[in-house]
Amino acid sequence: MNSSRKGDRTVLDQLAGLIALLINPLVMRLWDKLWRKVRWQGYKSCFGSVGAGSYIESPWMITNPANISIGSNFTALSRLRMETFEEYLGEKFTPRIIIGDNVAFNNDCHIGCINRVEIGNNVLGASRIYISDHYHGRIESADLEHIPTERRLFSKGPVIIRDNVWIGEGVSIMPGVTIGSNAIIGANSVVTKDIPANAVAAGIPARVVRILEKGPAAITGNIE
Amino acid sequence: MNSSRKGDRTVLDQLAGLIALLINPLVMRLWDKLWRKVRWQGYKSCFGSVGAGSYIESPWMITNPANISIGSNFTALSRLRMETFEEYLGEKFTPRIIIGDNVAFNNDCHIGCINRVEIGNNVLGASRIYISDHYHGRIESADLEHIPTERRLFSKGPVIIRDNVWIGEGVSIMPGVTIGSNAIIGANSVVTKDIPANAVAAGIPARVVRILEKGPAAITGNIE
Amino acid sequence: MNSSRKGDRTVLDQLAGLIALLINPLVMRLWDKLWRKVRWQGYKSCFGSVGAGSYIESPWMITNPANISIGSNFTALSRLRMETFEEYLGEKFTPRIIIGDNVAFNNDCHIGCINRVEIGNNVLGASRIYISDHYHGRIESADLEHIPTERRLFSKGPVIIRDNVWIGEGVSIMPGVTIGSNAIIGANSVVTKDIPANAVAAGIPARVVRILEKGPAAITGNIE
Repeated sequence: MNSSRKGDRTVLDQLAGLIALLINPLVMRLWDKLWRKVRWQGYKSCFGSVGAGSYIESPWMITNPANISIGSNFTALSRLRMETFEEYLGEKFTPRIIIGDNVAFNNDCHIGCINRVEIGNNVLGASRIYISDHYHGRIESADLEHIPTERRLFSKGPVIIRDNVWIGEGVSIMPGVTIGSNAIIGANSVVTKDIPANAVAAGIPARVVRILEKGPAAITGNIE
Repeated sequence: MNSSRKGDRTVLDQLAGLIALLINPLVMRLWDKLWRKVRWQGYKSCFGSVGAGSYIESPWMITNPANISIGSNFTALSRLRMETFEEYLGEKFTPRIIIGDNVAFNNDCHIGCINRVEIGNNVLGASRIYISDHYHGRIESADLEHIPTERRLFSKGPVIIRDNVWIGEGVSIMPGVTIGSNAIIGANSVVTKDIPANAVAAGIPARVVRILEKGPAAITGNIE
Repeated sequence: MNSSRKGDRTVLDQLAGLIALLINPLVMRLWDKLWRKVRWQGYKSCFGSVGAGSYIESPWMITNPANISIGSNFTALSRLRMETFEEYLGEKFTPRIIIGDNVAFNNDCHIGCINRVEIGNNVLGASRIYISDHYHGRIESADLEHIPTERRLFSKGPVIIRDNVWIGEGVSIMPGVTIGSNAIIGANSVVTKDIPANAVAAGIPARVVRILEKGPAAITGNIE
C-alpha cells in the first residue's frame, strides 16, 4: 500500500507539474502564438484562394471567405474584419474581395462587400482603415420609410484601389471609389470620389492636395 | 502492485486525455464563446434594466451599469466601453445612459456620461463611435490653472440621438448635441452642433450636406 | 487493491477538482488580471527607464523598449503600440520616445518613432491617438520609383507635445509637429503643423479655433 501510494504521488506529482506548466501564463502565451499560426494554416483553405507567404493575425472576423481571393505575401495585424454578404433582406448578392500581392494592413481594418472590392499589388495600409462598397440604403428620401437595418443594401459601384497606394491611419473609403496607382491618402480622410494616380489626398471629403510627377521637370506642391 | 500501477496508468491516462482536451485551443475557443454568453447572462442584472434579446459581446468595459438602461434587441460587438461617472474630484453626478429598442453598435464604441445620453429606437452605429456629454474642463481660460485630469468634468448638456439615426464609422458626438430622427452622419465626422431630422451631415465639424424629404416632391441634393 | 483504487480516486478527485478550478473561466479571468500585473512587472526592466507608479495594460505591442523612457504615473489602457525602428532597408536610426510624468492614454494608441517623440508632463490622451515622426518616403515624386514599403523612412523632424496638452479621440499627430503647452486638440483632427500654447485646434488639417488666455481680461472665442 505505502509503496503504491508513493507511486501515485510520483505520477501525480509529475501530472501536477505538467498541469502547472500548461496553465502557466507564459506557456499559455506561447501556446496562443502557436495556436494563431495553426489556426491560420487551418483557415487558409476556406478562402477562394490565398497566395504563398500570406498571414492574418488572430483574432479576425471574416464572413464567407470563399468570396475572398488573397495574393501572395499578404499580411494583416489583429482584428481584421472582412465581410462579404451573399444575402440581406432576401436579396442575393455575389460579392468579391480581390487582394493583390504584397499587400499589408495594420490593426483593426475592416472591408465590407456586396459587390466588388479590388486592392492592387503593394498596397500599404495603416490601422483602422474602413473600405465599403455599399450603404444601408441609397441615402435618399425613400430611405425614410424604413429603419436603417431594414433598408436594402445598396452599392453605388465597386471600390478599386490600384497598385502602390498608401492609405493612412483611420481612412474611410466609400462605395464606388477608384484610387489611382501610387496615390497617398492622408490620415482620417474620407474618400468619397475617385482619386487620380500619383495624387496626395486628404480631408473630409478627401481632396487632392498635390500630384506627384515623374521626371526632373516634376512640379510638386506642398502637402500642408 | 503491478495491477495497481496499471490501474493508475489507466486513470491517469484518462485524466491526461481530459486535460489535453480542456487545454486544446479549439476547445478553449468554444469554451471562450460559451463563457461570453454565460458572462453576459450573469452581468445583465447589473444594469438599471435590459430588454429581451439584448447582447453585448465580451470583452467590454462598463462602469456603474446600474445607471444604464438598455431596451430590447440591443447588440454591440467587442470592446464596447460605457462609463457613467458618479463622482470626479469630489463632485457628485447623477449620470444616465438610456438606450432604446433595436439599437446596434459594431466594434470599439465608447459612451462617456456624467449627465444624460439618450439613444432612441432603431439607431444603427458602425464601429469606433465616440459619444460624450462632458469634457475635462470648460475649454476656457480658467482651465489653464489646472492640468487636464484635475479640471472638473463639465457637461454643456445631454446628448440626444433620436430614432432611426445611422452613425458612420469613427464618428465623434460631442456634449450638448441633439441629432434628429432619421439623420445620417458620415464617417469620421465630429458632431459639435444639433443636426436636424432627416439630415445627412459630414465633416469636422459636421455640417448638413443634404436634407432627405418625404413625399414625391422631395428635393434631394447630392452627398458629395 | 480496492483500498488502493479508492486512494487513487480520492487523489484523482482532488486533482480533477483542481483542474476544473484552474480551467474555470472566472478563475482564468482573475488569473489573466494577475498575469497582466505580473507581465508588466517583468517587462518594465526592458524600457530605457520607467518611473514609479506607471502601468501599461496588456496586451501591448512594443518594439525596442530600450529606446523608450517613461516618467512616473504613466498609464495606458489596452492595445498600446509603441515602435522605435533602429533599422529599415539597411538604414540605421537612433529613435527615442520620451514620456513625462502623469501622462495618461486610453485604448488603442500608437506611437511610431525613428527620430524623437517627446511627450511632456500631465498630457491627457483619449483613445485611438496616432503619433508618428516619420513617413514611408518623402511624399515627393522620387517616391514613385519604389513601392510604399520599399521607400526609405523619412522624418521631417521630431514630434514634441508640451505639458498639459489634452488630445481628443482619434487624433493623428504628424511628423515635425510641436504642440504648445495647455493646447487642446479636438476629436478626429490631423495635426500637420505646429499648434501654439493655450490653443484649441480642430479639423483636417487642424487649425486653431480659439486661444485661451490667462487673467481676467482674457478674450475667449467659441469653439464651435
